[in-house]
This record gives sequence, C-alpha cells and structure tokens, in this order.
Amino acid sequence: MTTVALTADPEADPRVKAVFDDIRATRKSDFVNNLWHYLAFDPGLLESTWAEVKAVMAVPSELDPLTKEMLYIAVSIANSCTYCVHSHTAAARAKGMTDELHADLLRVVTLASKTNALANGLQLPVDPEFEADR
Amino acid sequence: MTTVALTADPEADPRVKAVFDDIRATRKSDFVNNLWHYLAFDPGLLESTWAEVKAVMAVPSELDPLTKEMLYIAVSIANSCTYCVHSHTAAARAKGMTDELHADLLRVVTLASKTNALANGLQLPVDPEFEADR
Amino acid sequence: MTTVALTADPEADPRVKAVFDDIRATRKSDFVNNLWHYLAFDPGLLESTWAEVKAVMAVPSELDPLTKEMLYIAVSIANSCTYCVHSHTAAARAKGMTDELHADLLRVVTLASKTNALANGLQLPVDPEFEADR
Amino acid sequence: MTTVALTADPEADPRVKAVFDDIRATRKSDFVNNLWHYLAFDPGLLESTWAEVKAVMAVPSELDPLTKEMLYIAVSIANSCTYCVHSHTAAARAKGMTDELHADLLRVVTLASKTNALANGLQLPVDPEFEADR
Amino acid sequence: MTTVALTADPEADPRVKAVFDDIRATRKSDFVNNLWHYLAFDPGLLESTWAEVKAVMAVPSELDPLTKEMLYIAVSIANSCTYCVHSHTAAARAKGMTDELHADLLRVVTLASKTNALANGLQLPVDPEFEADR
Amino acid sequence: MTTVALTADPEADPRVKAVFDDIRATRKSDFVNNLWHYLAFDPGLLESTWAEVKAVMAVPSELDPLTKEMLYIAVSIANSCTYCVHSHTAAARAKGMTDELHADLLRVVTLASKTNALANGLQLPVDPEFEADR
Repeated sequence: MTTVALTADPEADPRVKAVFDDIRATRKSDFVNNLWHYLAFDPGLLESTWAEVKAVMAVPSELDPLTKEMLYIAVSIANSCTYCVHSHTAAARAKGMTDELHADLLRVVTLASKTNALANGLQLPVDPEFEADR
Repeated sequence: MTTVALTADPEADPRVKAVFDDIRATRKSDFVNNLWHYLAFDPGLLESTWAEVKAVMAVPSELDPLTKEMLYIAVSIANSCTYCVHSHTAAARAKGMTDELHADLLRVVTLASKTNALANGLQLPVDPEFEADR
Repeated sequence: MTTVALTADPEADPRVKAVFDDIRATRKSDFVNNLWHYLAFDPGLLESTWAEVKAVMAVPSELDPLTKEMLYIAVSIANSCTYCVHSHTAAARAKGMTDELHADLLRVVTLASKTNALANGLQLPVDPEFEADR
Repeated sequence: MTTVALTADPEADPRVKAVFDDIRATRKSDFVNNLWHYLAFDPGLLESTWAEVKAVMAVPSELDPLTKEMLYIAVSIANSCTYCVHSHTAAARAKGMTDELHADLLRVVTLASKTNALANGLQLPVDPEFEADR
Repeated sequence: MTTVALTADPEADPRVKAVFDDIRATRKSDFVNNLWHYLAFDPGLLESTWAEVKAVMAVPSELDPLTKEMLYIAVSIANSCTYCVHSHTAAARAKGMTDELHADLLRVVTLASKTNALANGLQLPVDPEFEADR
Repeated sequence: MTTVALTADPEADPRVKAVFDDIRATRKSDFVNNLWHYLAFDPGLLESTWAEVKAVMAVPSELDPLTKEMLYIAVSIANSCTYCVHSHTAAARAKGMTDELHADLLRVVTLASKTNALANGLQLPVDPEFEADR
C-alpha cells in the first residue's frame, strides 16, 4: 500500500522511458526497482531524483561504491526507512558485502546510536580540541 | 552546561584512572575528551562504555578505522548529536579524511536523508528482489 | 498487528459512542478510521486525543485545512510514522491535493531533510541576523 | 537565541498571569522556567500547553511522578531536544533521582537506542507471540 | 522480509546454542524471539548483544523490571522501531502492565513528543537553574 | 564551532563568487547566510546545494513561498536541526508570517509529533480506505 498510484504503463511517457533506460544502462541490469516505478507519477520529480542519485552514487569519487552503500544503510537505519534499508542492503551485498562485513557495519551503527543517546543524555560540552578552525 | 556534574579529580578513583590510562594507551595520546570526563560520575557506566567503544572502534576488523569514523559521523548527523558529529569528524580528520572526502561523505549522507524522506513519503512496497532469503 | 486489542463493540461504551458520533458529525462522514477504533481501549485517552485533534485541525484558524494536512504529512514523514503518512495523505487528497501539489510537497520535504543533514553535519553557527529579538 | 521574542512584562496580560500563577501554585515554587516565558508570545498556546502538561504530569495517575520524568527524559534524548533533556533531568533530580538512578536510566535508554538500530537494520518480522489480540 | 537470511538449524552451532540456552534459562521460558534467531547469522554479534541485554535488563538494579520495559517502549516509539515497540510492549504486559498503565505511558510519551517539538520550534535557551554543577 | 574551517576570502574563487552573486540576485539582498559561507570549503557541494535550493524554493510552483518555508520549519523541527529552524523561521517571518500564524504552525507541528508517537505506540494497521490505488 502506497500514497501514490502506480502508473499502468509508465514507459509510454517518453520522459519516464528515458530515465528508466538510463537506470538500466547505468546499472547494467534490466531491473528497475519500485522507487522509480512509483516516482513515475511525476516525471519531473523522477528526473531530478535520478539525476541526483546517479551523480552521487554512480559517478566515481573519493568514496568507493561499497562504502557509499554502507553509509546509505547507516543513515537509513537511523532514519527508520524500511524501503531504504532493504534496497541499500541488497545493493551493498551485490557490491560484495559479506555477512562478516554486514555484522561489522551493524556493530558500528548500533554503537553510534548508543553513544549518540549517551551524549544527548549528558548534554556534553564540545571539546575545543575538536574545532576545525584551530 | 551538562546534566551531570564534572568530577573534580576523577583519577583519584582507581577505576576511573584505569579507564583513562587505557584510553591514553589505546589512542597513543594524552588527550581524554569530555565524554569520558563526564562519564566518571558513574565508574561502572564509564567502564562498560569504554569497553564497548574500544572493542568496536579500536580492534582491527572488516572495516578500516577511517570508514568506521565516517559511518559514525553518518549516524550522528541523522540522530542530530552535536557532540558526536564534532568528536567523530575530528577523529576522521585525524585518520586522514581530507576536505574532498568530507564533502563526498556529506553528499552521500544528505542524499540518503533526502531519499529516506521520499521513500517514507511514498510508503513504497519493498521489492521481492531485495529479499535476503532468496 | 497492534499493541492493544481491538474492542469488539466499542460504541457500547457511551463515552466512546459520544466521541465517534462527534467524529462523524465533524467530518460529515460515516467513516471512523482505525486510530479511533484502537484508542477505544482507553476512553479517557480517546476523548483527550479527539478533543485536541478537533481543536487544531477542524476549527478554522490562520492556516487553511489543506495546508494543515500538508504540514502534518511533512512531520509524519520526518518521524517515519507509516500510519500517519497514509492517513494524512488521504486527508490532503480529500481536501484537494493534486498529484502536482503532492510532488511539490515532496520536493520541499525532501530538500529540507537534505539540508537538515547538511547543517547538522557542518554544525553551523546561527547567523545573528536570524535573532527574533533584534 | 530563540525564534520568538521574549515578552517584556508577560504578566501584564491577565491570561499569562493566570497561567504563571497556576504554575507557581501547582509546583509550589516561584520559579517559572523559560518555556512558559517564551510561550507568552501567544496566550492561547501558553494556556493549552500548560493545561496539558498539568493534566498529565501534575495529576496523580498510574505512574509515579519520578517515573514520568524519567520517561520524559528518555523520549527527549531520542528526539534530541536539548532544552527538554535539561529541564526534565533537573525535574527528575528534584524528585529524588540519584546519580545511581540516572546512570541506570542512561543504561536502559542507550541500550534501547542500540537495539532499535539493530532491529531496524535487520528489518525483523514481528513474532506472532507479541500480538495483543491473541 | 529481512536483510539477513534465517539460519536453518541455528543451534547446531555451539556458540548459538549457548546463547539460546542462556536466554531460555534467564527468562524461564522456551520462547526465543526473532531478534535472536536472525542474529544467529553472526555468532559474535549474537553473543555481545545478548550479554548486554542481559546485563542491563535481567540483572536487578535501581530501576524495577517493568519500568525498564516502559522506558524501552518510550525510546522505541521515538525511534520508530516497529519490532521493538511490539516486543517490549509484550514484555511489559508480561510483567504486569495493565491497559490503564499502558494508556498512562502513552500519555506521557506523546506529551513529551509534543513539547520536544515545541522546544525545538522555539529554540529555547536553557535556564541556568537547570545546571547540574550549581 | 563548526566541523569545517571558514574560508578567509571565499569570493576570491570565481565558482564561489558566482554562487554568492546568484544568491544575492535571487534574494534581492546583500545578506549571504552562514550555510553558504561554510559550504565554500567545497565549491562543487556549494554549487549543487544552491542549485537545488534555488530550483525548489525560489522558482514559482504549486506551493506559495510562505507555505514552503513553513513546511521547511516543520521538517527541521522534527529533525531537530537548530540552524534550519532559525534560518527558515526568519525566512518565513520575512515572507509575512505573523506571531499568530507562527503559533498556529506550532500547534499543527506539535500535534502531529504527538499523534505520530501515538500511532507508533499503537502500531496501527493502515485503513484500506487510505489506499491511493483504489
């Protein structure tokens, strides 16, 4: 159950088809996941979202592709986004995340969640040593 | 301003001193940051917190130390923890995070925050292709 | 699956019936959604919740009814509340939200989520120009 | 620095004075904290907020007053509300929370934050045994 | 649907069996809930998680067992953790939480969520009277 | 105190100058707030962030400019972003938000925060009537 209706034949719209084609070409896969199918309800939002995801996630940069997926998982867990935890865990696994690495990722994310709560509970003053401008 | 009083001479307590000594030895630095100073109000909580942080962050594992710090930053941003964003950004920088890498990290974290909101807004059904048990 | 049992015949309790009657009268509809059915497990909590929702959402005020629903959606997305995103998106649609407006709403909410993460990541000092007391 | 201007002489408004008087009488103290001073910018919002806080926090109910304050702290930590963590920690201390109890509270709240992240990361199916309606 | 595969015969691994046995002995029940079954994908993570949950939740301390469960519910609601809200509400009920107490808990948690948003919206300065070090 | 150093003379970089010039021209004001000054540490991130903020917030669309600012405030409160609550409250005020409207906005945002917690606490099933695809 979603908040927008699924478009029956989304690729009948050439703007949607262009995005779907680019997703398939960029990912070298025929699979287009639900996010894009549902975003087809507004081609402009579909286009801008894909352009941004492609620029950040598919273009080589300082961070390697697997690390990007793990960071994505970390944020999605903290924001309690069911769809995103599923989709980015699957993506991380496709990029080589083993069960051992997954467990290690969960160890860091859950510890961070814990000490975030601790620091918020103590309302700690930030150490001047952490200042970027020193 | 914090929610617990700072202990005047925390290392007068041998349990606190043992933890502070181990922090200094593990990190090869004389600097003990505020989290540990304020946690000294309860030596048991200080000990269990440090034991866990050391086990996850200081013991070699699948994830390299810099990636762990970046994951920590990602979670801390999502949880809006001022102290943790500062302390782990400083730690990541000490472990080699350049401005370029920091910007790349922020690009992934902010994009994830954006699509988390999008997926929550659309209430997307999870694709069966993401199933771990397939 | 919920955390409280559904009451078999909730309107047998006159306090519950009075609230359900007022919901139907206020909304000019026979439909009473699940929130109220499940809240019937505690008539006092049902009464206080409905009184507050009615006072804020059903009484004319500065904000028009559709804008109120869109604000409700925005908060519910950020808080990751599945039920609330569904119920208030349906309410906004019933009050005239088109697909175009829905997409525009999602554009603002997702951008805000993104720059929230950016500002939290940078830990920006607040500009003195923003001071309400100037 | 706040988002609303502080009213110079708030109790010149009889509606504000009535609320402040009731706060002082209910709490048996001359101290009226900042929340109420700033809420004086809108007497209606001040009245409804105080009425609700009084009904839940000051009227005897199933939960004892100290437990209510600790629950308030737990939620405020998770929601990263600086003002609320401070005000309710002070209130809990005034109602008898010792350092030992404070540490115990933090142990539960931080563990919950950790396993929340773990369950969100694993996307666990809810056990049918937890069903309230069984 | 989860992000890790369920292990077919988890107790064939002696480390998993030892944890499951301790869960059953500690809780005096044959029921081992899904969290532990899915954590069996990484015995080390299973062991450290259970050790921590046992130390905080099953060992007598300042807070009584039911209050701990209610604090856990409060945090889990704020963090929007579906699994955790279900599991800890069931646990609280098993420890004596009545419908009346459950309603009272929800009254405090929802009021805290409300005034958290209010304080964040007003960006209130913390009263010096709340200072722990005074 | 921030996590990135402030650039001494940011507009010496022509890419930064171009963005700052466009901010001033778009907003018809000489004031460039801290977000942009600190983002100057990475001109690419500055450019992409401004392009997106301009496209969503400064280009006429379905939502009027003041409603956009109020939605931004709502999300920023829920995400506990200090800088964003301040900057967008100031922007909303500059676009005509009165104290009365501000109070009304806070009434909706705080009620939504409350019922979000209530729905998460009850784990309500979504009513089939809310289905977008009906």
